[in-house]
Amino acid sequence: MNIHELALKIGALQVEGASGTEEVTHTTAIEDGDPGALCFIGNPNYERYITSTKATAVIVSEHFQMPEFNGVKQPVLIRTKSPYEAFGLALEIFSPKRTQLDKGIHGDAAVHSGATVAKTARIGAHATISDGVTIGDNTEIYPGVFIGPNTTIGSDCVIHPNAVIYDGVTIGDRVVVGACTVVGFDGFGYVPMANGFYKKIPQVGTVVIEDDVEIGACCTIDRATIAETRIKRGVRLDNLIQIAHNVELGENTVMAAQSGVAGSTKVGRQNIIAGQVGLTGHIETTANVIIGAQSGVSKSITKPGTYFGYPAKGHREALKLEGALRSLPELIERVKQLEEELKKERA
Amino acid sequence: MNIHELALKIGALQVEGASGTEEVTHTTAIEDGDPGALCFIGNPNYERYITSTKATAVIVSEHFQMPEFNGVKQPVLIRTKSPYEAFGLALEIFSPKRTQLDKGIHGDAAVHSGATVAKTARIGAHATISDGVTIGDNTEIYPGVFIGPNTTIGSDCVIHPNAVIYDGVTIGDRVVVGACTVVGFDGFGYVPMANGFYKKIPQVGTVVIEDDVEIGACCTIDRATIAETRIKRGVRLDNLIQIAHNVELGENTVMAAQSGVAGSTKVGRQNIIAGQVGLTGHIETTANVIIGAQSGVSKSITKPGTYFGYPAKGHREALKLEGALRSLPELIERVKQLEEELKKERA
Amino acid sequence: MNIHELALKIGALQVEGASGTEEVTHTTAIEDGDPGALCFIGNPNYERYITSTKATAVIVSEHFQMPEFNGVKQPVLIRTKSPYEAFGLALEIFSPKRTQLDKGIHGDAAVHSGATVAKTARIGAHATISDGVTIGDNTEIYPGVFIGPNTTIGSDCVIHPNAVIYDGVTIGDRVVVGACTVVGFDGFGYVPMANGFYKKIPQVGTVVIEDDVEIGACCTIDRATIAETRIKRGVRLDNLIQIAHNVELGENTVMAAQSGVAGSTKVGRQNIIAGQVGLTGHIETTANVIIGAQSGVSKSITKPGTYFGYPAKGHREALKLEGALRSLPELIERVKQLEEELKKERA
Repeated sequence: MNIHELALKIGALQVEGASGTEEVTHTTAIEDGDPGALCFIGNPNYERYITSTKATAVIVSEHFQMPEFNGVKQPVLIRTKSPYEAFGLALEIFSPKRTQLDKGIHGDAAVHSGATVAKTARIGAHATISDGVTIGDNTEIYPGVFIGPNTTIGSDCVIHPNAVIYDGVTIGDRVVVGACTVVGFDGFGYVPMANGFYKKIPQVGTVVIEDDVEIGACCTIDRATIAETRIKRGVRLDNLIQIAHNVELGENTVMAAQSGVAGSTKVGRQNIIAGQVGLTGHIETTANVIIGAQSGVSKSITKPGTYFGYPAKGHREALKLEGALRSLPELIERVKQLEEELKKERA
Repeated sequence: MNIHELALKIGALQVEGASGTEEVTHTTAIEDGDPGALCFIGNPNYERYITSTKATAVIVSEHFQMPEFNGVKQPVLIRTKSPYEAFGLALEIFSPKRTQLDKGIHGDAAVHSGATVAKTARIGAHATISDGVTIGDNTEIYPGVFIGPNTTIGSDCVIHPNAVIYDGVTIGDRVVVGACTVVGFDGFGYVPMANGFYKKIPQVGTVVIEDDVEIGACCTIDRATIAETRIKRGVRLDNLIQIAHNVELGENTVMAAQSGVAGSTKVGRQNIIAGQVGLTGHIETTANVIIGAQSGVSKSITKPGTYFGYPAKGHREALKLEGALRSLPELIERVKQLEEELKKERA
Repeated sequence: MNIHELALKIGALQVEGASGTEEVTHTTAIEDGDPGALCFIGNPNYERYITSTKATAVIVSEHFQMPEFNGVKQPVLIRTKSPYEAFGLALEIFSPKRTQLDKGIHGDAAVHSGATVAKTARIGAHATISDGVTIGDNTEIYPGVFIGPNTTIGSDCVIHPNAVIYDGVTIGDRVVVGACTVVGFDGFGYVPMANGFYKKIPQVGTVVIEDDVEIGACCTIDRATIAETRIKRGVRLDNLIQIAHNVELGENTVMAAQSGVAGSTKVGRQNIIAGQVGLTGHIETTANVIIGAQSGVSKSITKPGTYFGYPAKGHREALKLEGALRSLPELIERVKQLEEELKKERA
């Protein structure tokens, strides 16, 4: 694609150093750039590659400063407001959709006669679709998936290989469920008996996954004890995440890998939860909360802002405490000296 | 079901505010209560709903105090010793068993001719049952499950979809194995060679899961290097839990999601281990130990009690340390002031 | 096997207490040793069993000291430089290879006509092999595995049950992929739109797994946004590990269970990363770094050595800080006393 046509399509503010005949044929990382390649710099750590890349064009921010440079040929600079977003558009242009399933129902799938599968849906080999299931238009069910009885899956969804979706679950449109992810398994609810044995509380609730949700691989999203576990519109979950029974995740909330939310906790909308974070049960977070990696959230968070630590604190308090902690060995020395001086004073 | 009949069945101590003709038809969360519903209050956080719920009846504790209330109609109160336990009984009454598998062996299952499957067992589509496997009465093997050669599974077990149970494993009666859980994979044992390469130690031990154990989804329970990894009677494991080679979990021990136990560690009976906890290898915990969320246990625990932190400490010590830590910025100020006062004193 | 023949095969330095006619028939843990058994002591914690074991022979280190002992019969001691390594060799001698798959392609596997499968490869029931896939000599694909289009798997690999390997992935020779592990799922890359919605960045890169890599069960190894995620030769990953998009793991690096590496981070060669560790994105570690359990690595590590804590610090600094922290309650008391003394002084 011609450089100026491309610049137009990705919302460029300005194009620098182009003769106008440059052709972009593919996308690469900046350190791997070769002739024909389009790259981007979304993070200052990658600016150092700008003088060595052989890419044809590089998407940069408005404020990017080209360093002095003795190279034979500079790449074209495409300035944009958000290089990451512009590169996302470029990736869509240069990458065809990956289709891995044939049309229709594979001969080796086990589809119950009581299931309703849209004609435009695709069902892979060794998938199991139970009685009473409804599957919407253009939805793809990959090989090895299990869908329990009476579950409803909307249109344009992708259920990845070996995912398990139990009975009576409701999934909206344009939902992605990652490989080996388990949705609607019984919540972890037991009552201790007098003899020490834990008796199971039947988990008779369900899971509702709203439209436009994307869930990673090897996640577990448990059904509610009663009522529902709800993942609201636009939520993005990375891999290996635990969502316990009766949890609610607010609209457009994002969680990174290996985090977990304990039972009945309500996470607000537009939260950003980093990796390996834990939220205890029966708490709430308000909208627009950011929680740093490996934090442990033990109380409700009622004010928007950034929190981190174990237990999680407000950003400013946490930084102050971390600084104080680092100075602790020195403080011990200072106290020792004070003690000695006081001793001398009194002698 | 009539309110008094129900009260009798769930072991009520007292019924308050009933005319005697009330009918309960289903169970809900208290905030979702509608006419016909039975709810419960197991946690003081939910008491606030008692004045707004439209439920017919609410299970409460002996000591629950009904707040002053101007509503048109109060729900019937069913007082019990343990509202959670009573509600568990009620859930069983109002929820039919969820059966998702047809009787017998599905035509799309691959059952080896050398396997012994009880006539009352159910085997789902696309399950693979290897040579020498024994499966007991009423056991359900869901679609996509793999059972390796010579493994024995008792009666009344449920092996959920896409779970993997390797060769030579022994599973007792009434055991639940969650979806995508892997039992009996090789333990993580390597020896560093002089050239930096890690050579695998063959893992020739096994896994034994005793009666009445329930294991969540996406867990990994490795086989022993030699001898066995053993999960004792009544253990309950949540999702995404790692149990390494040669670990032993004591009777009725409960572990929450995303926790892990490293190799050869022996966890005592009736332990309660919260979420995202790690126990290092080659240690032991005694009976009746409680470990708080995200703790790291690096030494054996020989006294019953509550522990938390990183590294985990006794409850009282950990709280004291946490309080001391919070006061650290103030302590730094106090030391600074002492230094200044001493300076003045000497001047 | 005769004791002297065995000693020769496992590289013994010396054999003590043997009549020469002893026969070893199997291997056990030292606490389970019975006549005919070979055991080992690789860890001082197990030395206490030496006087009670009924094993025929025990592998010990050069420096092991036999305690005074009134037992009827002592086990033969086989002294070696590395008992763990010697026992590894013995395990190989006494344990036949576990073969769980029949030769050839199972009748219930779905192998696309456009796939190239070596004649000596084994494909289990309910496996799905897509168009354009190449599978090398002696490679075993277990039941329920999904291999996406155009993926290449080398020779002598084992892909365990219900593992998922997406399209366009490259896997070398002698690679092990654990059960329910997902390789090549889309990386977690989104761009926030002005309305709060997160738009997906197409993930058009791939995953390369070099020769001799072993990956545990329920791991997730994401494909790169562009370019590749690379797991280098000899890497060993335990279970439930997250490797994000564009990560590189250096040669012979070892990671224990439930650890995770965020996007674009490069881990050096011969690193040892303990369990439940997190590494943030866009950082690097040099060669020969050791990171303690549950640590959080937030900055690049440029010097070999041992690190731990949250955030991770050098071993010496971390220990000093931990000691300082433990003495904090006492320090508070000392400051209080100083304040009182100074008050008296001035009075």
